[in-house]
Amino acid sequence: MRLASRPVGLPTDENWTLTEEPVGEPGDGEILVRISHISLDPAMRGWMNEGRSYIAPVAIGDVMRAGTVGEVVASHHDAFPVGSHVVGALGVQEYAISDGQGLTRVDPSLAALPTYLGVLGMTGMTAYFGLFTEGRPQEGDTVVVSGAAGAVGSVVGQIAKLKGCRTVGIAGGEDKCRLLIEEFGYDAAIDYKAADVPKALRELAPKIDVYFDNVGGEILDAALARLNLGARVVICGAISQYNATEAVAGPANYLSLLVNRASMKGMVVFDYADRYAEAAKEMAGWLAEGTLVAREDVVDGGVPAFPDALLRLFRGENTGKLVLAV
Amino acid sequence: MRLASRPVGLPTDENWTLTEEPVGEPGDGEILVRISHISLDPAMRGWMNEGRSYIAPVAIGDVMRAGTVGEVVASHHDAFPVGSHVVGALGVQEYAISDGQGLTRVDPSLAALPTYLGVLGMTGMTAYFGLFTEGRPQEGDTVVVSGAAGAVGSVVGQIAKLKGCRTVGIAGGEDKCRLLIEEFGYDAAIDYKAADVPKALRELAPKIDVYFDNVGGEILDAALARLNLGARVVICGAISQYNATEAVAGPANYLSLLVNRASMKGMVVFDYADRYAEAAKEMAGWLAEGTLVAREDVVDGGVPAFPDALLRLFRGENTGKLVLAV
Repeated sequence: MRLASRPVGLPTDENWTLTEEPVGEPGDGEILVRISHISLDPAMRGWMNEGRSYIAPVAIGDVMRAGTVGEVVASHHDAFPVGSHVVGALGVQEYAISDGQGLTRVDPSLAALPTYLGVLGMTGMTAYFGLFTEGRPQEGDTVVVSGAAGAVGSVVGQIAKLKGCRTVGIAGGEDKCRLLIEEFGYDAAIDYKAADVPKALRELAPKIDVYFDNVGGEILDAALARLNLGARVVICGAISQYNATEAVAGPANYLSLLVNRASMKGMVVFDYADRYAEAAKEMAGWLAEGTLVAREDVVDGGVPAFPDALLRLFRGENTGKLVLAV
Repeated sequence: MRLASRPVGLPTDENWTLTEEPVGEPGDGEILVRISHISLDPAMRGWMNEGRSYIAPVAIGDVMRAGTVGEVVASHHDAFPVGSHVVGALGVQEYAISDGQGLTRVDPSLAALPTYLGVLGMTGMTAYFGLFTEGRPQEGDTVVVSGAAGAVGSVVGQIAKLKGCRTVGIAGGEDKCRLLIEEFGYDAAIDYKAADVPKALRELAPKIDVYFDNVGGEILDAALARLNLGARVVICGAISQYNATEAVAGPANYLSLLVNRASMKGMVVFDYADRYAEAAKEMAGWLAEGTLVAREDVVDGGVPAFPDALLRLFRGENTGKLVLAV
């Protein structure tokens, strides 16, 4: 799946070209990977834009960048024998040739392959470092999470709870809100489609110690109005704004940062790469003991289904980590 | 000068009542202070509003809160003998009775009395802790300051320079901009009334390491667009917004915090009270050696002139620390 043109607003079919090409042979020191699952991430929308960001844009004509997991089916690389499984950014395609750089071997007997894109992958790392390194919650803190039923948000709520915090999740729709409580252990849920979010926060989280933001827009603004002294706001994403064709709405309540001596900090998971192993080990421990639930939302259809699968994120249709099965 | 009513937008004469009352006698453990200078601060506008902020609002009917410096003219308190000088929040009045709580003795032979409201007072402390504790500039960093000719901004630029930073100041008007360069040692100045600020920043400060914001609004937004990786934005004030009668304009470019893993943090000087002495000592040293210039803008007219003097801040008429001589 190649990027054909840069979208304005929501991506459309015209932004993509599906091509069929020979798989090719891995050279010396290379491997051929058959991709089994492709990660779908809100950040992909940003990669499709031209211009400066935290990572180079995908070039027009290039295979769309994506995190993937797959099996090595041909190898000229000792570290990645045939039959081993790897995770890495191999793109939206069925097969990829790689020299192994940026790939990590994973053990499918320890966790299902899609989990290596979710809780044990970039998603989990984002939640882990965003919450613990940037949010720095203390026991008893009130932690509010937007996009709380999504890939990152569902993990943030759970691991905040594991650290003894009170967790309030914001998500869209009754079903998701039920999931927040029943599956992800949130203490309270706010359905932003049905509720008055500022009012609900005033009742359920009048003093927010950590606000983990995945959505931006009005919900960010509502949360800023309820910060506790010294609160930490973690800007992880802003899915409400990624497809905006008008100017981004800035958070009008930003002066709450001054009044409350609070901080608002952006985070990009790649910055914590040297500590992934440590985090993955702790997350795997929680998974094994059953205190952390890994929820993947696996959609079928393979590479041709990618354009529509991506839109599910922006329609808010997924719960947990959205993954495309190849 | 008592607060008569809460302003909507800019304060007007109707918001104030000037009363004449007997001075009174200090009781046991109390002193009588003849106030010589009153500090004028943008933050005063916030204290006039009702509702939650970092400090209780001034109650209707109360003497307006203000930092002051003065001389002890009657004393039943050993720590403050007659003839000694004190600094503290004694309010917009000619005389005040105090039990000494929150007062600090100052030496008029070491610095002019208004300087204890400026560089050696809350203003200087705000600049010092806002820059060094929250902005954390490194040698060679680009430090951009808005309200750069004002009380706090003029100090921030100078002490950033003392730490080996490149400094770019933003102020309104040619005269102020000349002052930035010639008196406060800024490396470059941007006249926001004449220049296209986003364009000027692109040329003069394309990668901002520390942005010290006193003004908010469009200038904050322009600065956010030019953050370097890991930049620190210090929210010290937002003078462009204090008299707004419409909703505060949020910073639309806040996602630059994410892209650049930058932080935006609010600060209130009172939080650093236990370190004032240390900071004042360092600032006094710089003053003594002549590497730091204390500029006060002293207006005459005493307490009756307070309402108009306050408006000078919001009209951008002051350079350096605005002080009312009683």
